[in-house]
Amino acid sequence: MIHMAKAHVLFSGGKDSSLSAIILHNLGYDIQLVTVNFGVLDSYRHAEETAKIIGYPHKVESMDRELIEKSVDMILKDGYPGNGIQFVHKQVLEIISEKYDVIADGTRRDDRVPRLDHSEIQSLEMRKNIQYVTPLMGFGHKTLRNLVNNYFIISEKESEELLKSDYETEIRELIRQRGIDPLEYFPKHIQSRVIGLKR
Amino acid sequence: MIHMAKAHVLFSGGKDSSLSAIILHNLGYDIQLVTVNFGVLDSYRHAEETAKIIGYPHKVESMDRELIEKSVDMILKDGYPGNGIQFVHKQVLEIISEKYDVIADGTRRDDRVPRLDHSEIQSLEMRKNIQYVTPLMGFGHKTLRNLVNNYFIISEKESEELLKSDYETEIRELIRQRGIDPLEYFPKHIQSRVIGLKR
Repeated sequence: MIHMAKAHVLFSGGKDSSLSAIILHNLGYDIQLVTVNFGVLDSYRHAEETAKIIGYPHKVESMDRELIEKSVDMILKDGYPGNGIQFVHKQVLEIISEKYDVIADGTRRDDRVPRLDHSEIQSLEMRKNIQYVTPLMGFGHKTLRNLVNNYFIISEKESEELLKSDYETEIRELIRQRGIDPLEYFPKHIQSRVIGLKR
Repeated sequence: MIHMAKAHVLFSGGKDSSLSAIILHNLGYDIQLVTVNFGVLDSYRHAEETAKIIGYPHKVESMDRELIEKSVDMILKDGYPGNGIQFVHKQVLEIISEKYDVIADGTRRDDRVPRLDHSEIQSLEMRKNIQYVTPLMGFGHKTLRNLVNNYFIISEKESEELLKSDYETEIRELIRQRGIDPLEYFPKHIQSRVIGLKR
């Protein structure tokens, strides 16, 4: 099998971005994990740890803090996080697409946000001359649960206790810094992080 | 890594269903290739050959000829094949779902038919208590072209010359048997079949 190009995988340290990287590696891609950071918290350190566990090179891409400030404005105005998170993700893809040829993320079949629709994907790929790949898009939640159990040892905790390297972590901190309780916008939910490999 | 369940992959002998099987095998699934046949032609033999090449067990599932007759009725009435092919694929999934737990096909991100939408997938999974998996759903045509070139030696010919084991092959034969030129409904296009592995 010939080597494929390098795939840059947007990486939060969670099970979905981890599994996406593994699928692409199995297909012959060189993997470069990329965690974006907006300078609010050094939350990328969690992804850094997970990257070591799953064994792929990892780097941090610093993004303009203004982007996540704008996302927080949207969330506070809307009263719910959907549009704000969607906005950040699209902006991140636009920026990352200027630098890399093959870009992947862990979007799943049953995810609602962040998620690009088909015409947004085609527009991104054509405008930037890149390939955008979402290896989990054909997998439902039951299948993914089986795959995740098969590959990973997972730590599951309440979102307030488990720090990840996703958009939500920095967004919540920024809301807190504005003197507002982020729980009003992000109700408690179970977060998961990959803490070991079963292979 | 623990073994996953068995995945039944709907298999035409083409590059998409072949690549879908490889992705699932890489993820730890036991693979069973399944070619459906409506008794019009023994076109499943082409898939049988390709199955040997890619190295997974293969079987034929006989379907009621009435199904494909109904599909041909729809195609002749519509003047184009989209709805008729969509109809057959949905019926096949309904029938196969009675027998197997994990069912996959080669639907790609940029495919229009046959394709189940999100609510149809969820309905199928819940009604039949199965998992329906489309491993190529997150991959665009450029990425798939690279992957296919990486894995397979492909034979590409005009659709009239290259016999595959897909719905179209038996549908075209049935239209011909009704005294109509299938080219009126399926314009010439390039078909491809996997004839070797590059590994």
